[in-house]
Amino acid sequence: MSDVTGATAPVPAIGAPILHVAVLGLGLIGGSAAQAWRNRGHRITGWSRRAETVSLAVDRGIIDDGAGSAASAAAGADVVVLAPPVLAMREVLRAIAPVLRSGAIVTDVASTKQAPERWASELLPAHTHWVGAHPMAGKELSGLNHVDPNLFRGRTWVVVPPPGASRHAVAVVERLGQEAGSRIVEMDAASHDEAVANVSHLPFMVSTALSAAVIGSERFADWSSVAASGLRDLTRLASGDAIMHRDICATNRNQIADAMERFAAAFAEMAAQVRALPDDHDSSTTGELAGIGSMFDRVKAVRDAWLPNAR
Amino acid sequence: MSDVTGATAPVPAIGAPILHVAVLGLGLIGGSAAQAWRNRGHRITGWSRRAETVSLAVDRGIIDDGAGSAASAAAGADVVVLAPPVLAMREVLRAIAPVLRSGAIVTDVASTKQAPERWASELLPAHTHWVGAHPMAGKELSGLNHVDPNLFRGRTWVVVPPPGASRHAVAVVERLGQEAGSRIVEMDAASHDEAVANVSHLPFMVSTALSAAVIGSERFADWSSVAASGLRDLTRLASGDAIMHRDICATNRNQIADAMERFAAAFAEMAAQVRALPDDHDSSTTGELAGIGSMFDRVKAVRDAWLPNAR
Repeated sequence: MSDVTGATAPVPAIGAPILHVAVLGLGLIGGSAAQAWRNRGHRITGWSRRAETVSLAVDRGIIDDGAGSAASAAAGADVVVLAPPVLAMREVLRAIAPVLRSGAIVTDVASTKQAPERWASELLPAHTHWVGAHPMAGKELSGLNHVDPNLFRGRTWVVVPPPGASRHAVAVVERLGQEAGSRIVEMDAASHDEAVANVSHLPFMVSTALSAAVIGSERFADWSSVAASGLRDLTRLASGDAIMHRDICATNRNQIADAMERFAAAFAEMAAQVRALPDDHDSSTTGELAGIGSMFDRVKAVRDAWLPNAR
Repeated sequence: MSDVTGATAPVPAIGAPILHVAVLGLGLIGGSAAQAWRNRGHRITGWSRRAETVSLAVDRGIIDDGAGSAASAAAGADVVVLAPPVLAMREVLRAIAPVLRSGAIVTDVASTKQAPERWASELLPAHTHWVGAHPMAGKELSGLNHVDPNLFRGRTWVVVPPPGASRHAVAVVERLGQEAGSRIVEMDAASHDEAVANVSHLPFMVSTALSAAVIGSERFADWSSVAASGLRDLTRLASGDAIMHRDICATNRNQIADAMERFAAAFAEMAAQVRALPDDHDSSTTGELAGIGSMFDRVKAVRDAWLPNAR
């Protein structure tokens, strides 16, 4: 591993061993993590489905070595990080399973965690360790061209050990998250998927439905002259990557559908309150308007109380 | 009017007469407009329900003269600008109707336009001109303390002439919007209320329902550790002023309820698509996922195409 501590790579902290990390998938997340870890002195072998991406990643110093297949990248690695499109994870797991060394730790960066955990338990040999992970970093841009070793600084790296996980394997994955600059949050896979369904996938669905209903309306030409920052901000998430969100839906279907149901119920209740408002209004009707006004006030208070803790 | 062209007030453009403008209501919008117009050399008389607000506005140079009542402010003014809370507009109109001079132009700054137009036609004498308006400026902060004469620069000042409006009166109101730095968009009241119901009031409702369903959930303590910028941005509008939104609902009930219904239909269709996804997933199931993926893609394309035109 003498090639690791070259001129461009800082020396790792004393006592923290240098790891041989295989990063499979060199998009924004995989590439950014690879570069962050390489900067901490780890030896990074990278693989991507497209050979040009692999050589570009070597040329740019994002990885130490490029591999011609997922299996050859993973063979002998201490830690294998799966960062391909989510629906390709199973075939990558199948490809690497026979070559993993005893004690190898396999982790990932996917936005959902129950499906990867199930796939890993089906496909990985018993002499390896699965510890899922979800680094929560912005994904508005994608691909190797936007790689940024600081992408994860100050963000959350969710670590999802399966039942009975080796604490050593969990500690190694958490160390990698910390070395990328993130704070660690540990959760089980079901809790993770329920949480992100509500705080992340549901907002995307809401944003997309709003885009479809308003910007996608045939009437929008008549409305757009008065559109302002509210519409723009509320539809921002609808411009996210369609394939990523398709795969999120495919692997977190029930939790997303449940969250959508809860939202739809809250929304229907508000619509009924609007429909029930009196017909004509001045300061003498404020009593009849008290219900909807205090509902807006309560929701505002709850949101304002959370805001200082929002990341 | 010699007191108008003092040291602090720039000389108006040649040929544009100085107007005596009464601003009734000195909150963020009324106060900011008053100061912008005073800076253009107009003579501004201000009134607010709270006498302290009126003297503060005089002390800060936001208005030239303070009045003790809406009627005394409006008496003799060329243009009267109604900027009280929306549900107080009727009683202000009743109070000023008897004192308005012949040819006086009455306008407003309310977020909805059909109700004010109806109230004006009921209450204003025939020798005056009503031309409604809606300056579309940010309202996250409120009150005289946040007054900013540049609040309207680069924004849209929607001007809403009633059927058969005097073109002279419309031109005067449009000139005031321009002098505040805004571009003018002219619409009828029904079109305005439909447009803002969709591009402004619906996003508020969506944001509030999302806040209620997620941040207001008893489960939120378990979810908040993975909450990121998506949830924060999508719930931003829920922190808007509850009373203003109550009054918007009260005066634009049917259009908002219709917009909510269209959104709910789009959302329900997406929820059905999510529920119908296959049970297990890898690259072999992408055919079954094509529907939801291409729907996300279409919505993204429509939103991305609009974005360069968004203000």
